[in-house]
Amino acid sequence: MCADVAEGVSGAELVQECAPERLELKREIFAQLADLTDDGCVLASSSSAITASESSAASPARDRCLVAHPGNPPHLIPIIELAPSPHTRDDIVQKARALYATVGLTPVLLRREVEGFLFNRLQGAVLREAYALVRDGVATVDDIDAVMRDGLGRRWSFMGPFETVDLNTRGGIASHAEKMGPAYHRMGLERGQDDPWTPDLVANVARQRRAALPLEQWEARVAWRDRRLIADLAARAGRDHRDTDATDATETC
Amino acid sequence: MCADVAEGVSGAELVQECAPERLELKREIFAQLADLTDDGCVLASSSSAITASESSAASPARDRCLVAHPGNPPHLIPIIELAPSPHTRDDIVQKARALYATVGLTPVLLRREVEGFLFNRLQGAVLREAYALVRDGVATVDDIDAVMRDGLGRRWSFMGPFETVDLNTRGGIASHAEKMGPAYHRMGLERGQDDPWTPDLVANVARQRRAALPLEQWEARVAWRDRRLIADLAARAGRDHRDTDATDATETC
Repeated sequence: MCADVAEGVSGAELVQECAPERLELKREIFAQLADLTDDGCVLASSSSAITASESSAASPARDRCLVAHPGNPPHLIPIIELAPSPHTRDDIVQKARALYATVGLTPVLLRREVEGFLFNRLQGAVLREAYALVRDGVATVDDIDAVMRDGLGRRWSFMGPFETVDLNTRGGIASHAEKMGPAYHRMGLERGQDDPWTPDLVANVARQRRAALPLEQWEARVAWRDRRLIADLAARAGRDHRDTDATDATETC
Repeated sequence: MCADVAEGVSGAELVQECAPERLELKREIFAQLADLTDDGCVLASSSSAITASESSAASPARDRCLVAHPGNPPHLIPIIELAPSPHTRDDIVQKARALYATVGLTPVLLRREVEGFLFNRLQGAVLREAYALVRDGVATVDDIDAVMRDGLGRRWSFMGPFETVDLNTRGGIASHAEKMGPAYHRMGLERGQDDPWTPDLVANVARQRRAALPLEQWEARVAWRDRRLIADLAARAGRDHRDTDATDATETC
């Protein structure tokens, strides 16, 4: 705890600003931090909406600035998205990545600055579809939430969307894209989205998945997935036993 | 186990067909089942793509037919989506819902037949965004998967997308929609989707959320969410300790 900025950041390897989401305020902070920190110090912004290009444009230290966007709540969600500007030095990006990993976080790197970064891009895609389903009278809010928490979310809590479908179809994600791509394309078209999974794109995704999991290990990984789901069901059964009223504020678990 | 259909379904309260995804085959099955089952027997199709309107159009028992689509793997994912046709009797829908709940599943009801039902609608929205991010060179397949499994999926495994954002903003989902709606709309427009969250739509969603969780209980529910995330982190730490090589086929957990 320190009431003076200069003293607080002196000798720091990384400074993380968590100021309110106002561009002018972020700009002042990054201008000020440039003079107060060493040339090897990472200057990170927690912003979910203001890019490093915007907040560090006028900073003499713009080559040390990047966004490091945590999930919410940040102390309980390990992901942290690193979104450097085109001016950010590569050694700063690598240093930030290493430092966040050291404290138990999962850093991911954006190679281009896009609104919403990755986290809110994926969340937004789900929310837009969910709102449209309610608008069109297809399902209730609670039934849509149930599909996530008792369905998709069970898998996505330990596998991402690519690994999930990679393990859902024998032959892996290339086979999944061939079988399911046209249907997902049609559902997208209904929402105005015309982004087909072209052969080149599928080949790129499949190449990355096969580097992570050769097809020879596919069956073992499917068995691993099933054991994770079983362990998850067992943990929930224990928790439900202890926790019959989820909204009870006196519950401890 | 029974090798004869008539004997197998005799006296059944519910029959679930899991035949290959071919319309003609489903039609034959539902035509045949009409004569072999009682008038109170639910005739359910596991299809993820063929609607009850299509598969039961020619069945004399079309008023007892509906889709009951499980997640994959079905024995480990509790969700089951009920998608009746316009001809399905309400008592059959209610009976199906009750029977699935009795065996520990989470039935959700579609009020209209839409391609992909709810599960693959939400999954498709994520997959399309994820593929587009790879196509545009924003991130790798593994980094996108990491954002889900170490980020969004941690929350969605016990809260749906609506409850998640309802708890993310003081004032609940109405406040979230006001603050974040325009940004999510812009991200949608980038993908061709023009589905703004209108005041009427937000009011409808907020009304359903407030019926599920009055604002007076909001802080207690946020504390519950945090305890769930802590319990989840603790369970993972224990599992990681036992399971250092996730792809090791000899691991038991």
